[in-house]
Amino acid sequence: MNRTFDVVVIGAGPGGYIAAIRAAQLGFSVACCEFNSYDDPAGEPRLGGTCLNAGCIPLKALVSSSELFEKISHHLEDHGITVNGLHMDVLRMQKRKESIVDRMTGGVQFLFRKNGVTLLKGRASFAGRVDEGYRIVVRSKDGDEEVLAKKVIIATGSKARHIPNVKVDNETICDNEGAMKFTEPPKRLGIIGAGVIGLEIGSVWRRLGAEVTVLEVMPSFLGACDESISRQASKLFLKQGLHIRLGVKIGQAKLTESGVSISYTDDQGAEHLLECDRLIVSIGRVPNTEELNLEAIGLQTDERGFIPVDDHCATASSGVYAIGDVVRGPMLAHKAEDEGVMAAEMIAGMKPHIDYGSMPWVIYTTPEIAWVGKTEQQLRSEGRDYKTGQFPFSANGRALSLGDSDGFVKMIADAKTDEILGVHIIGSNASDLIAEAALAMEFRASSEDVARTCHPHPSLSEAVREAALAIEKRALNI
Amino acid sequence: MNRTFDVVVIGAGPGGYIAAIRAAQLGFSVACCEFNSYDDPAGEPRLGGTCLNAGCIPLKALVSSSELFEKISHHLEDHGITVNGLHMDVLRMQKRKESIVDRMTGGVQFLFRKNGVTLLKGRASFAGRVDEGYRIVVRSKDGDEEVLAKKVIIATGSKARHIPNVKVDNETICDNEGAMKFTEPPKRLGIIGAGVIGLEIGSVWRRLGAEVTVLEVMPSFLGACDESISRQASKLFLKQGLHIRLGVKIGQAKLTESGVSISYTDDQGAEHLLECDRLIVSIGRVPNTEELNLEAIGLQTDERGFIPVDDHCATASSGVYAIGDVVRGPMLAHKAEDEGVMAAEMIAGMKPHIDYGSMPWVIYTTPEIAWVGKTEQQLRSEGRDYKTGQFPFSANGRALSLGDSDGFVKMIADAKTDEILGVHIIGSNASDLIAEAALAMEFRASSEDVARTCHPHPSLSEAVREAALAIEKRALNI
Repeated sequence: MNRTFDVVVIGAGPGGYIAAIRAAQLGFSVACCEFNSYDDPAGEPRLGGTCLNAGCIPLKALVSSSELFEKISHHLEDHGITVNGLHMDVLRMQKRKESIVDRMTGGVQFLFRKNGVTLLKGRASFAGRVDEGYRIVVRSKDGDEEVLAKKVIIATGSKARHIPNVKVDNETICDNEGAMKFTEPPKRLGIIGAGVIGLEIGSVWRRLGAEVTVLEVMPSFLGACDESISRQASKLFLKQGLHIRLGVKIGQAKLTESGVSISYTDDQGAEHLLECDRLIVSIGRVPNTEELNLEAIGLQTDERGFIPVDDHCATASSGVYAIGDVVRGPMLAHKAEDEGVMAAEMIAGMKPHIDYGSMPWVIYTTPEIAWVGKTEQQLRSEGRDYKTGQFPFSANGRALSLGDSDGFVKMIADAKTDEILGVHIIGSNASDLIAEAALAMEFRASSEDVARTCHPHPSLSEAVREAALAIEKRALNI
Repeated sequence: MNRTFDVVVIGAGPGGYIAAIRAAQLGFSVACCEFNSYDDPAGEPRLGGTCLNAGCIPLKALVSSSELFEKISHHLEDHGITVNGLHMDVLRMQKRKESIVDRMTGGVQFLFRKNGVTLLKGRASFAGRVDEGYRIVVRSKDGDEEVLAKKVIIATGSKARHIPNVKVDNETICDNEGAMKFTEPPKRLGIIGAGVIGLEIGSVWRRLGAEVTVLEVMPSFLGACDESISRQASKLFLKQGLHIRLGVKIGQAKLTESGVSISYTDDQGAEHLLECDRLIVSIGRVPNTEELNLEAIGLQTDERGFIPVDDHCATASSGVYAIGDVVRGPMLAHKAEDEGVMAAEMIAGMKPHIDYGSMPWVIYTTPEIAWVGKTEQQLRSEGRDYKTGQFPFSANGRALSLGDSDGFVKMIADAKTDEILGVHIIGSNASDLIAEAALAMEFRASSEDVARTCHPHPSLSEAVREAALAIEKRALNI
């Protein structure tokens, strides 16, 4: 007799594990399937998906260590602090990163036990539909198990996109998995793709001394960001020594004795050869849907491999939901989490809702970039009447005290109703400051609502308020 | 013929300078009076008041430098970073502080010029009332000038309270002004008063190596904070080596050859002598109202020296407003600023409003403490039904990455309506995280409103959301 669960979640990444916990909180019997996708030495599935194992969490650990190293390298003198013999032991830094990852993935295991979620170890795929629900086969080295799921949440995430002429070996030519495991900073680091992941990982190794060159196929830099933010970011990254080549055509990557050489054509049509010690390919991600055998339950992916869903993440098969990187929308951990909660609550007959328009984005460069809502160029192309207000951190006392006064906050509001349409931040702690803006947008706040709210002094958050004041040309400190 | 202004603001601290700028924005002719209260070498008045010259801003500059020093002293190893010969040049650190203060006070001068605010240099007092408004005399070393003010905003701020047996010389025995000017860390530092300023300044010198002992008359620690926060702070400060003696009676402070000795009686009645190199007195502040000659316009202060005002900062004399530290309410720079804006807008016939209940507080210790709204003990004593939710930073991936995972977020909501009644944070960047909570309270948000708002991952702000989720016992990551 096969085990039966009210809800089976396929995938234990941030979308899947949160969906499983929420479903368990709502009183369902829940199983979550995960296989050994991250080469755990004991052969056990590592929970938390890309985010915890090869994405957000390890990257932010490296960001913290490398930012501290950079601060000590370049920004002590002004404070009156002197040191000698600064040295970074990269292996030790990696060990710290791994211990944080271990703690977090272990945390998910604890949460599963606490909430009574059954972990099914192995790779799950559909075997068919029956009256009571869906047959799911979980394959592992210890054998196969078939379970019956009354409802299913697919949360299998995504993997790095590769290109034919650049073969990833995760030693010399790496995607996100190998790029965070270097045991020393490459002298010359090449990166294909100036997206979020490329810039974040590139910045880590630049801070530790790598000469970083980023090749980007698109002619514009950080096109998803507000144009003022991209311009400022471009200036600051240039000043930091990051080389960014836009509008290139990538040729072939060849392993050489010392590393790898990449041929590319620049935006003027001239041919170049970039010689580097390591190369990172970060040109986007593709959904993990191939091995699910979706046909068995009458589902099809779209031409890019995504599973079509409605606004509530329901697929065309009744009782089957899909969330996170396998469905439309941004590939963000918190988007997957919120969809996980929504799917579980839909199964429970609740009426959850996600407003994708007030979902924040963060890029963990120095300084951080964060935004929520629409960019100025989007609103312009929509023909919408809007007002903008901007305030620089160089006029913020707390930013000056911290020695982190690069960047600004820009707020955009509807010209007539004053409703906030977008908030764009480049600066220290942008990742925390954006939370207020996201809440404001959830409330459909006007810029005046933020302008009239008391913000603590001295704090970076005052810059958000001043940007709101600037919309009505009544900023007080600029 | 005396010069006449629509609005004369007395005092150019954060309340006064903001009031002057706002009044100028609203189209009034505005003058702001300030005298040389901070011993400017050129004898010029330094704008920005205590906040910019001897409070928030210089203190936060020292906080940043000393936090960096402490991080390098104790928290590098884990990151794989090693250094030798760490040294702090305190004079250089002070120079950095002063350059930040100069920049900020210079900024206020720039803002006055930009907005057409006339700076009246000298000490202002009332000379009487006439049909058109109020006669104000501005006394300086270059002579007296009498001006006529149609409306007046009093913003003269406060000064440190002293006690009879402990004579402040701002060399060995200091208040906030001397305490931030030490040219080396005192070996043994005594502090009378475990309030915000004492703890912030004490923490600066502790990080730089001082052995700090804090004597507090009150039997409880940080009584204004939520009880869970005070308990946690007490534990963490103890671990940092801060000695805190509660419930003491202060005797006499005597200068000795090596510094100063303070006699005190502990909470058991035993007598002690605390020997230290420097002593800081931080037992609160008193309003600067003595030299205004308020009687000339028919105004009287209360028994503690405050000017009585209504909810809109109007005094009993028509057209005269008083704001900031000279009136009821917390002595916070952002409270003074908001009252400055309100007073200017009242003069313009607008309908401004301040909700003192959603005004945030911050203490810049390590970790930071910030809160908005009511504490659990307040609500209990009011007999109100409430629910609480708490989430520790030790379960937050970003906090672990930063290596700053001490502390937690606690949210309190009404048991029936779910309206947020208070948010209390102890942890890294609490000063920025509290902004979201303050906005939520301005909107009279429910805890569910915050729980349903997408927060970026990985960020510290997720802890605010999880605390909101915890109120309904549905936190996802604990």
